[in-house]
Amino acid sequence: MYGQGLVITDVRLTPVLVADPPLLNTQGVHQPYTPRLIIEVVTAGGVVGIGETYGDGKYLELARPFAERLVGREVADLNGLFTLADEVAVDGARVDDSVDVGGLRGVQTADKLRLSVVSGFEVACLDALGKALGLPVHALLGGKVRDAVEYSAYLFYKWAAHPGAEGDDPWGAALDPAGVVAQARLFAERYGFSSFKLKGGVFPPDEEIAAIRALADAFPGRPLRLDPNGAWSVETSLKVAAELADVLEYLEDPALGTPAMARVAAGTSVPLATNMCVTTFEEIPEAFATGAVQVVLSDHHYWGGLRRTRELAALCRTFGVGISMHSNTHLGISLAAMTQVAATVPALDFACDSHYPWQSEDVLTSRTRFVDGRVAVTDTPGLGVELDRDALAVLHARWRDEEHRAMRERDDAAAMRAVDPEWVTPAVPRW
Amino acid sequence: MYGQGLVITDVRLTPVLVADPPLLNTQGVHQPYTPRLIIEVVTAGGVVGIGETYGDGKYLELARPFAERLVGREVADLNGLFTLADEVAVDGARVDDSVDVGGLRGVQTADKLRLSVVSGFEVACLDALGKALGLPVHALLGGKVRDAVEYSAYLFYKWAAHPGAEGDDPWGAALDPAGVVAQARLFAERYGFSSFKLKGGVFPPDEEIAAIRALADAFPGRPLRLDPNGAWSVETSLKVAAELADVLEYLEDPALGTPAMARVAAGTSVPLATNMCVTTFEEIPEAFATGAVQVVLSDHHYWGGLRRTRELAALCRTFGVGISMHSNTHLGISLAAMTQVAATVPALDFACDSHYPWQSEDVLTSRTRFVDGRVAVTDTPGLGVELDRDALAVLHARWRDEEHRAMRERDDAAAMRAVDPEWVTPAVPRW
Repeated sequence: MYGQGLVITDVRLTPVLVADPPLLNTQGVHQPYTPRLIIEVVTAGGVVGIGETYGDGKYLELARPFAERLVGREVADLNGLFTLADEVAVDGARVDDSVDVGGLRGVQTADKLRLSVVSGFEVACLDALGKALGLPVHALLGGKVRDAVEYSAYLFYKWAAHPGAEGDDPWGAALDPAGVVAQARLFAERYGFSSFKLKGGVFPPDEEIAAIRALADAFPGRPLRLDPNGAWSVETSLKVAAELADVLEYLEDPALGTPAMARVAAGTSVPLATNMCVTTFEEIPEAFATGAVQVVLSDHHYWGGLRRTRELAALCRTFGVGISMHSNTHLGISLAAMTQVAATVPALDFACDSHYPWQSEDVLTSRTRFVDGRVAVTDTPGLGVELDRDALAVLHARWRDEEHRAMRERDDAAAMRAVDPEWVTPAVPRW
Repeated sequence: MYGQGLVITDVRLTPVLVADPPLLNTQGVHQPYTPRLIIEVVTAGGVVGIGETYGDGKYLELARPFAERLVGREVADLNGLFTLADEVAVDGARVDDSVDVGGLRGVQTADKLRLSVVSGFEVACLDALGKALGLPVHALLGGKVRDAVEYSAYLFYKWAAHPGAEGDDPWGAALDPAGVVAQARLFAERYGFSSFKLKGGVFPPDEEIAAIRALADAFPGRPLRLDPNGAWSVETSLKVAAELADVLEYLEDPALGTPAMARVAAGTSVPLATNMCVTTFEEIPEAFATGAVQVVLSDHHYWGGLRRTRELAALCRTFGVGISMHSNTHLGISLAAMTQVAATVPALDFACDSHYPWQSEDVLTSRTRFVDGRVAVTDTPGLGVELDRDALAVLHARWRDEEHRAMRERDDAAAMRAVDPEWVTPAVPRW
């Protein structure tokens, strides 16, 4: 024990359901509510650190025994979190080899599940440690190398509203090139984003090519990206790459799996990015050896936290592979965590992804702002954000509400079946 | 600025000459004195952090402008040290492509030189930061995963004394198998080491094979290593590996360069370790792709500090390559730094190297002890060691003394020429 005040005396886990617009992807559509888990770590010194991660049942099942074992340890003992994770038994029955629907993030494994839980606690511990020491989280990661982190506009095909809702949501529909461009203009005006990513794999490739072309016309010279979540064959991927080579900054996960990605990479000069075929350290050697990816999109949630994200960045730097950041539906705690770690990574050459603009709800006392497409890196101790207990209580009450029980597990295919009872997750490659 | 007290107000550089026994290697022999640089970083809060690195002129030349630019920055800004290093001009004339004689650590490059300087400052900053926050350095690296770090006995062929000295030194001669075994017994008794490394490349391979055989007889079942510093051909390396396969834990740098190492690795089941063909991140891809090394011997001095050492460990873990620690002549500050970072690396499967037992002099108020071959990991804030200003002054006075000017540059070949005027650094492969 080297810091009595740093000892963890209590851990609070609060699952919440967060409003989510009807964003379309190749698996289906986002449900009206998405589960997230809010983690609070309380120290003997009276500091409370907060973290956030996936909130589906299988994550909660792991987080609960993990939280119990955390009490009595120190928030500075971050390496110990991984030892602890190994000790917490994984219910094998909850892990299958299917693609993680909620995350659209490659094959699910017990290890990935465990790391996704660890990451929420790691962020909470870093927040508590920073607060206790009077240092921002980025200083605990060696210090920021930039004062603001750039994000890209994360564009989605979407319906005007969830089925059965009264009236359109504030973003309206985007189901064709004009709709996508309108959405992009809204994001550019509101947040100042100057690079754009379209979540594809929803419509036949020609329609999505047309959407990217429309974006290129509307925002000449701006970095554009297209991400069909592995929905295409190698041949289709190469066709799209060829047609959009002059406007794409990179193509994200056009085909599923490292061998397919390697075949695409061999046939195009468009860089390939991924958050599907490289989502764990174990997947790196094959992907790098075969040249399957040119940009890894890190996500601290499933790489095991902010310090592991920095290790991943070091790996990518060593092998001449680019790095940027993936995002799934998340709240302001994770945006703060993403910003703090991104601020410390030297060669972050691409704007990071963030779903945050789509989340109208948050658990913070003050919403984080994008200015000129950037989030300022705060020097406030810890993550620099404050939990709004009233907001947390509201979102937790929704989670407890029996009416929304089905939403506790994110299932984009099930949400689609509410509209199309015949819907099944499309076989890959879809096109 | 997030911590006014953490701002650096002064940096002190003190070159010293440290007594070194006449240890033999393939390049020549250690000089009576070896240069080291002691770095002190003083904060506005009145804390002094200490670090140590190579002390030859080319390092001093870089360290001086680096130290000047450090003033006004914060000790927590560790990522910024690398930006700063890029800004400090390198005198290209001092960098050549020859093997670094002093270090026996592969080809010299401007980048390696720069990182060797950064590392000393990084350790000093970590020491200061830890002291300011009341945390041991290992806690700044995520916390220790073990309470003691194991070291191996670092055996050398050696003369009984430096040329012209009066009487033998306390270790005596070791120029044959019996002498090596006697030295090993001394190290085992005095420090409790239970694994043994012999610096080879000094005598024809058959003599060194005989020395390892004698060690295996004297210490049955104990891990043994042999390191000829790249002096052998691929054929000789394979012959030695075949003859010692049953007793070697690993063979260290038998042949020079990644292609030669890869050919050796392909022909033996004995793992190959290196601190010569993989000494920078740039050298990793080729070495790992060709299977040239099974264990990387990290040295925080030239990998750029303790945090980079952890990144290297993450890289090795990802590619299934083992990690342990190299050592050159060093004092107690570096031993403390090595111990603190080694304590945080999960899969440190091999005992680390350290020259420390050969250094009868130190700049600490209290010598670090090996118990059962291990150094205890202290929880005292910072590195947990204290500078002895009187001892520092004595060793610095020696450095200033015109009589010892020649020793300011480590040159093992020059030291050998004092005995054998015809000596030239042997061409590689020597055997």
